[in-house]
Amino acid sequence: MTKDENIMHKCIQLSLKGKGNVSPNPLVGCIIVKDGKIIGKGFHKKFGEEHAEANAVADAKNNGFDLTGSDVYVNLEPCSHTGKTLPCSDLLIREKVRKVYVGMKDPFEKVNGRGIKKLRNAGIDVETGILETECRDLNKFFIKFVKEHLPYVTLKIAQSIDGKIALNNYKSQWITGKESRIFVHQLRSEYDVVLIGKNTAKYDNPSLTVREVHGRTPYRIVIDRDSTLPENLKLFTDSDKEKTFVITGTSKKAVTEIYSRNIIKVKEKDQKLVIRDILKKLYAMNVSSVLVEGGANLYSQFVKSDLFDDMYVFIAPKIIGKGISCFSDYEITKLNNAKNLKYIYSKSFNKDLLIYYKNVHRNRTGSGKDHKQES
Amino acid sequence: MTKDENIMHKCIQLSLKGKGNVSPNPLVGCIIVKDGKIIGKGFHKKFGEEHAEANAVADAKNNGFDLTGSDVYVNLEPCSHTGKTLPCSDLLIREKVRKVYVGMKDPFEKVNGRGIKKLRNAGIDVETGILETECRDLNKFFIKFVKEHLPYVTLKIAQSIDGKIALNNYKSQWITGKESRIFVHQLRSEYDVVLIGKNTAKYDNPSLTVREVHGRTPYRIVIDRDSTLPENLKLFTDSDKEKTFVITGTSKKAVTEIYSRNIIKVKEKDQKLVIRDILKKLYAMNVSSVLVEGGANLYSQFVKSDLFDDMYVFIAPKIIGKGISCFSDYEITKLNNAKNLKYIYSKSFNKDLLIYYKNVHRNRTGSGKDHKQES
Repeated sequence: MTKDENIMHKCIQLSLKGKGNVSPNPLVGCIIVKDGKIIGKGFHKKFGEEHAEANAVADAKNNGFDLTGSDVYVNLEPCSHTGKTLPCSDLLIREKVRKVYVGMKDPFEKVNGRGIKKLRNAGIDVETGILETECRDLNKFFIKFVKEHLPYVTLKIAQSIDGKIALNNYKSQWITGKESRIFVHQLRSEYDVVLIGKNTAKYDNPSLTVREVHGRTPYRIVIDRDSTLPENLKLFTDSDKEKTFVITGTSKKAVTEIYSRNIIKVKEKDQKLVIRDILKKLYAMNVSSVLVEGGANLYSQFVKSDLFDDMYVFIAPKIIGKGISCFSDYEITKLNNAKNLKYIYSKSFNKDLLIYYKNVHRNRTGSGKDHKQES
Repeated sequence: MTKDENIMHKCIQLSLKGKGNVSPNPLVGCIIVKDGKIIGKGFHKKFGEEHAEANAVADAKNNGFDLTGSDVYVNLEPCSHTGKTLPCSDLLIREKVRKVYVGMKDPFEKVNGRGIKKLRNAGIDVETGILETECRDLNKFFIKFVKEHLPYVTLKIAQSIDGKIALNNYKSQWITGKESRIFVHQLRSEYDVVLIGKNTAKYDNPSLTVREVHGRTPYRIVIDRDSTLPENLKLFTDSDKEKTFVITGTSKKAVTEIYSRNIIKVKEKDQKLVIRDILKKLYAMNVSSVLVEGGANLYSQFVKSDLFDDMYVFIAPKIIGKGISCFSDYEITKLNNAKNLKYIYSKSFNKDLLIYYKNVHRNRTGSGKDHKQES
């Protein structure tokens, strides 16, 4: 790692402190260096509050430093538009910094290179693409949100070696071990929404809260097209019940009769909810990330519609045999038509193995192409 | 690694040159050191030929060395019985070596500590257990063969992420990529037997030869209980057809009518062949290792009978959905009754992931206990 990459890596680490609190904004960390020393640090703490650059400038000034001639490192292009805060590029120009090191260009249409241009027009040197892959990965939720106007969707599956998520009688709890569950709770604390299907709600009665790690519980959304889920589920009765939403179809009158629930109405087709419409509704609610935690029907629909982005598969060292396959409602007639994914990494969690895949989208160029466009 | 472990590691590497040729004997490598220099090396090359120690002694003498006062490293206890060759312990005593470093005790009942005892009684220092875990792993086939009087059984599965080995129409070829296939060909060259079930023979019509690597093709054994497999399969017609055996039941007269096939008759129960009897018959034929390459029925029977030892699972980055599950004929009613395995390691082969598991046997103490007995 070069010196600049090393400082950018620190910006990324710093930005992670905002995890779970900034959505749908990006995670941003900023470090200001002068005469070889770090004089200010800042990160974006919470949606609607100051940007990382503003916090870093304030930090440097609080420490008694003059920013003239300093170097600024930030994982995302400084903004150029007047939003909830003043444009960061204007701020850096005012402070007469010497050079700005940028991890990646901001894909948000109101910025999209304008921040970099403003800085350069003011005579400030700008270097882009420092640890760009890492910076893009850090803000995968944000990038999808602003470019595709849809939330980022991750499938999380806990299965046996033979791909079973439950017995035929729907028994499924604790297929994986404690270490895997801790990782899942960490994920939940970072996603805006955890989404489950009706059978999972009915047979597992999960709470979907964050218990094993310190972090906030996400919005819990359950699909109940015809509004027939029982009222006594944990999701509807526990202390986080205000964070529970129900997605129903538009065709049933039952929907309006359940006053106690937060309802999201979604288009139906062939007696199934339209996945794209679910995601559009969630986008409209400012949701930038969705963790899908089952079951087989819902997983299958995300694969059929090709509307998921990546997948965490936990493989417990067990053989179940007959049971419910994770994609039981998905069907192909030729092996060439199998849904392809890209293996990224695997990691062992005590006895379980986690495999991480990215989706290889069928009919869109998606984030892969974006990446190449970035220089 | 200590100096002694380092030399023992070299013995193991040396022994691997015998892979595929020594069964059911063990893989053994031997290195002789004098005045800090290696003066002789040898390994067991082929079943029925000289042991590693004899080859190493001959090598040292050919090089003009006197072995008096030398140190001998060997991954398996020198033999004490007069078999196809003279006892190695007697040979080392005659050569007046100073000390013998042994990887593991020979579990073969005719040796089983007697070689070490003989050496010690002759005043030669013996140190045991150098890289013992590695030495036991090296000779897992041999250990099972001599202790349990059964061949070592490995299941090799190539599946999609969701545990499917074929579509419902039995289409299955090339689920995994070329790099994975090379590894499988390497495995085949090291096992005595590749075993497949009837549907796999019928629908895949595999050749099961070793093509991607340099090595010998194993015996190819196909299960055909009622002798109805067509004569035109590759296994029955290719240039290795003499290495093909058919396992049939004992109840059908059809068996005796197919003169062109090598037949192994095995007990039946509930219209299925008894797995233990298959393995006993193979043991009687001096088979010490069996690689099971499908399909779902045969895999399921090995899991039901708990008669397999380990498992290689190749996971292709694909989702198949509806299809044939790798253990479709295995069933449990409680999650606690799932077949448990032990995760050992994973390794990526380009786009595929290989996961290696060891069986956790239900009702026998097996190799785990053996291991503890060894000091």
